[in-house]
Amino acid sequence: MAIEIERKFLVEGDGWRAGARASRIEQGYLSNSPDVSVRVRIRDQAASLTVKGERSGLTRDEFEYPIPLDEARTMLALCVLPPIIKTRHDVLFAGRLWEVDEFAGRHTGLIIAEIELASEADEITLPPWIGAEVTHDPRYRNSVLIAADPLPGTLGPAT
Amino acid sequence: MAIEIERKFLVEGDGWRAGARASRIEQGYLSNSPDVSVRVRIRDQAASLTVKGERSGLTRDEFEYPIPLDEARTMLALCVLPPIIKTRHDVLFAGRLWEVDEFAGRHTGLIIAEIELASEADEITLPPWIGAEVTHDPRYRNSVLIAADPLPGTLGPAT
Repeated sequence: MAIEIERKFLVEGDGWRAGARASRIEQGYLSNSPDVSVRVRIRDQAASLTVKGERSGLTRDEFEYPIPLDEARTMLALCVLPPIIKTRHDVLFAGRLWEVDEFAGRHTGLIIAEIELASEADEITLPPWIGAEVTHDPRYRNSVLIAADPLPGTLGPAT
Repeated sequence: MAIEIERKFLVEGDGWRAGARASRIEQGYLSNSPDVSVRVRIRDQAASLTVKGERSGLTRDEFEYPIPLDEARTMLALCVLPPIIKTRHDVLFAGRLWEVDEFAGRHTGLIIAEIELASEADEITLPPWIGAEVTHDPRYRNSVLIAADPLPGTLGPAT
């Protein structure tokens, strides 16, 4: 069993962009109940199917399986809601990997930084471009964003 | 992409039991909307995660991935509804494999036979122990049975 322990923050400014490695993520949800989510993700040319359990504190069960790309594409078409598309920027700061997700489509303008921890007590050094913590704010879950209207501060879809 | 084409029937009598090979199946659903189901199954000591799309005629998309047994057990515990437990009997008749599912728990008494076809036009010889066809009756879907009261003719849970 895998365990995911993560914290999630809003991002301020562009200080994180220099040197970041970008990849394109497209993901949809076959299920996004509060108890369990089933996610289909294509990241660049690699696809995965991921089951996540209910969150408890910073922690939730996570089961991720690599799947063939063509099957992921078909499964994305089975998802009732249109997929989330975002650019993921891998950013190294103080020896830690931050994943900075820059959303596209109707959530354009939303940028969220996540960091995975080894334990809930793990202490981290916050980069200067980190804003408010939203770890416990359900509005910023991808499984909620996919069904939600744009959040305040986002720009909406490019026209 | 895999395609599942199957027909489903009720079963009459015990004529199918001789020579059948039995295995134990426990399965739960991480999602069971009408559009898509996500099933966790343990069959004897092998586990799988299966995504099935919406049915069209006799056909639906099916994506099945083997997963570690311990992860399947944890995922079964994430399912909101208690799992279906049934004995699957593999029965050969006229050169074809029939899967005869004998349900336990509150659906005790319910026995359903399924056959997978190569195409929707595939003709089959019905064994003498086959009863009414229920291919298009949603009540007999496992993803529906798991949330449903016992059907008429079932015995309910052993007491």
